[in-house]
Amino acid sequence: MAVGIGILGGGNVGGSLARKLLTDREVIATKAGLDLELIGVSVRDMGRDREFPSEYATDRPEELINRPEVRLVVETMGGIEPANSLILSALDSGKPVVTANKELVAARGPELFERAANKGVSLLYEAAVGGGIPIIRPLSESLAGERLTRVTGIVNGTTNFILSTMEGSDASYDEVLRQAQQLGYAEPDPSADVDGSDAAAKAAILAGLAFGSWVGSERVFKEGIETISKADVENAARLGYVIKLLGLADTVHGGVSVRVHPTLVPNDHPLASIRGAQNAIFVEGPAIGELMFTGPGAGGAPTATAVLGDVLTAARELLADTQVSPRIRFGGASVVDFEDVSNSWYIRLEVSDRPGVLAAIASVFGDHDVSIRSVWQEGLGDQATLLLITHEGREGDHSAAVSAVDELPAVRQVAATIRVIT
Amino acid sequence: MAVGIGILGGGNVGGSLARKLLTDREVIATKAGLDLELIGVSVRDMGRDREFPSEYATDRPEELINRPEVRLVVETMGGIEPANSLILSALDSGKPVVTANKELVAARGPELFERAANKGVSLLYEAAVGGGIPIIRPLSESLAGERLTRVTGIVNGTTNFILSTMEGSDASYDEVLRQAQQLGYAEPDPSADVDGSDAAAKAAILAGLAFGSWVGSERVFKEGIETISKADVENAARLGYVIKLLGLADTVHGGVSVRVHPTLVPNDHPLASIRGAQNAIFVEGPAIGELMFTGPGAGGAPTATAVLGDVLTAARELLADTQVSPRIRFGGASVVDFEDVSNSWYIRLEVSDRPGVLAAIASVFGDHDVSIRSVWQEGLGDQATLLLITHEGREGDHSAAVSAVDELPAVRQVAATIRVIT
Repeated sequence: MAVGIGILGGGNVGGSLARKLLTDREVIATKAGLDLELIGVSVRDMGRDREFPSEYATDRPEELINRPEVRLVVETMGGIEPANSLILSALDSGKPVVTANKELVAARGPELFERAANKGVSLLYEAAVGGGIPIIRPLSESLAGERLTRVTGIVNGTTNFILSTMEGSDASYDEVLRQAQQLGYAEPDPSADVDGSDAAAKAAILAGLAFGSWVGSERVFKEGIETISKADVENAARLGYVIKLLGLADTVHGGVSVRVHPTLVPNDHPLASIRGAQNAIFVEGPAIGELMFTGPGAGGAPTATAVLGDVLTAARELLADTQVSPRIRFGGASVVDFEDVSNSWYIRLEVSDRPGVLAAIASVFGDHDVSIRSVWQEGLGDQATLLLITHEGREGDHSAAVSAVDELPAVRQVAATIRVIT
Repeated sequence: MAVGIGILGGGNVGGSLARKLLTDREVIATKAGLDLELIGVSVRDMGRDREFPSEYATDRPEELINRPEVRLVVETMGGIEPANSLILSALDSGKPVVTANKELVAARGPELFERAANKGVSLLYEAAVGGGIPIIRPLSESLAGERLTRVTGIVNGTTNFILSTMEGSDASYDEVLRQAQQLGYAEPDPSADVDGSDAAAKAAILAGLAFGSWVGSERVFKEGIETISKADVENAARLGYVIKLLGLADTVHGGVSVRVHPTLVPNDHPLASIRGAQNAIFVEGPAIGELMFTGPGAGGAPTATAVLGDVLTAARELLADTQVSPRIRFGGASVVDFEDVSNSWYIRLEVSDRPGVLAAIASVFGDHDVSIRSVWQEGLGDQATLLLITHEGREGDHSAAVSAVDELPAVRQVAATIRVIT
């Protein structure tokens, strides 16, 4: 018997899925043994051209959900509302839901999963992180028995495209951003990508899966790439690093820390090789060692493929009238104060090159319990640039040290501070 | 209620899993919501020291399976028998089975899966390919809706360790093999690794999952690394390649081709960066583009982690009295004759450097429909070495051309032929 599918949202992902359901219905039936039937796609603007025949389009999502032929709902609208209400409405009527909405899962995850569990229906979200890369399922099922220690990811393709393009060209951040917009790698309003919000939602979800403790995206420390300059990209290269916007989740001091910030990544780290709009998630644990998952982090077709994988699982669970995909379990781990997280910093200072400047700077860092691993100096006189890389130490100590250094008469400017991983 | 686990085989993987079940029982219960209880481990030699307390050891596997407290059976013995009979016996008594046995799954997969389906119990095998890398689940679930075109993997850590060590040292194949044996990366009898049998079993399983058509390991074309010389490793490096033992599965001429052979991989291919005992699986499809999964391909702890992930899924299905993990479905695709597969070759010839030699060689290749992409010549007179890389062409034509070239009076020896991917 066919499983009728209603898709909320007819954009890149929803449209690509709709087309795939229509063109590949027989392939899917042969390969997966399930007959998936597209019933309709709710769209915002009925007038626009679509990847799928217009008779499937409707502008009444609530009506689509309630059609009896729709037995499974896919949400690809994005954003909190109306996606949240529509998903709750589908779950309440006992229809399983597959969503690609990281923002919603990161913001309302526990509530949504509880509702799904109470109704005994599946709620799956493989496409919410890493686009087409299977990562949710491996973390929640294959690695369910491992005490993971850290998850580090390049989970935003736009920023990775911008940063890796800056490496290879003379263009500034603004020029590369414009280029990314022209190529469709960045939105006309790129703020959610470049300010780290998108990556923060994904990092929050990864942390929840890896450590079983829910961290709302508002509790993720977040710094964007808007202030990364060509000079820092070049300095990083000279020192053997590339700059990446990383989402990191680990356990420290008995709590969980989740953060997103530009990071100097050593050239020989597996994440350093991830170029362009690619995504990658690097997973560490005592038994498993190191795993890395690489692939297309966005785009209609890859993301629709991940959604379709979830649809097949949800349909199978629906037909078996069961629901065995692992629930997210939320343990009691608390979020560690970001001030107490340990990091190493790259610091670029513009200084007057007078005798004793370095000694004065070093002593301020020492006073704040920050020890300096290496120093490079360029230029002379008033044009001197000092690059420092510190040993790992408390974030709070680093911030305080940098503020104090900024007060030194010989320091004209703290031009940049970027965190470093080893 | 606790789910009692019986483990068949107390070696690296079985022992590591047993210890994990004992030490992490509470962590697993909290994180996964399942209480897994180790009941016993069947071992071959009762006298040996183990990673787990000796009271769990038994030398009667059949008795262990039949104990009523054992509700789920894990098989980590390896080999065809007695593993096969024991698994069938467990399935027949309605107990789900998790196996790490690539040899058995590759040889008897369809029979075993049919038995499990008939009995309505789970049979899972994530650890059979790629050790700790989650690959079975992503291929069979996350990517179930994609028409995959090719799966390429470094699926044997021993050979990758040997080949990547040869790159960085002056040591010969035999010396590096001895070193690998001393470090525990190669068995005292390394033949199943170095002759490609281990990789062939894994490639057969990957092909089954990717294309839904079963290929027994005996139908996998197989060539080992025993004849790879230091000279070829160095030549490859000079030409911008590294040599890897690859397992490849793709669809050609409406059929499936699965093969394992040493391969020149261009330096900028993602698989070229996989060093030492690491494994990686590279997956391609029209919607998904390129995905790569990297991690530890062997070792007790990583493999036990993958097994534990399957145990959790199987236990969940057992408790729900259902079985929704996707079945392998075997379509009707036939295996393409290896002679008809298209490949590019690297060919090393020892020739007498007389005028007209290259023309004679080129004309033989042309007669066999093989066209030459590039030629390098080294040395003079009787010591000349000719390196050729051909354009893609039929395997059969390549073999015939090389045999004919070998007959030329000026050709002293066809010193090596290795396939090349782009």
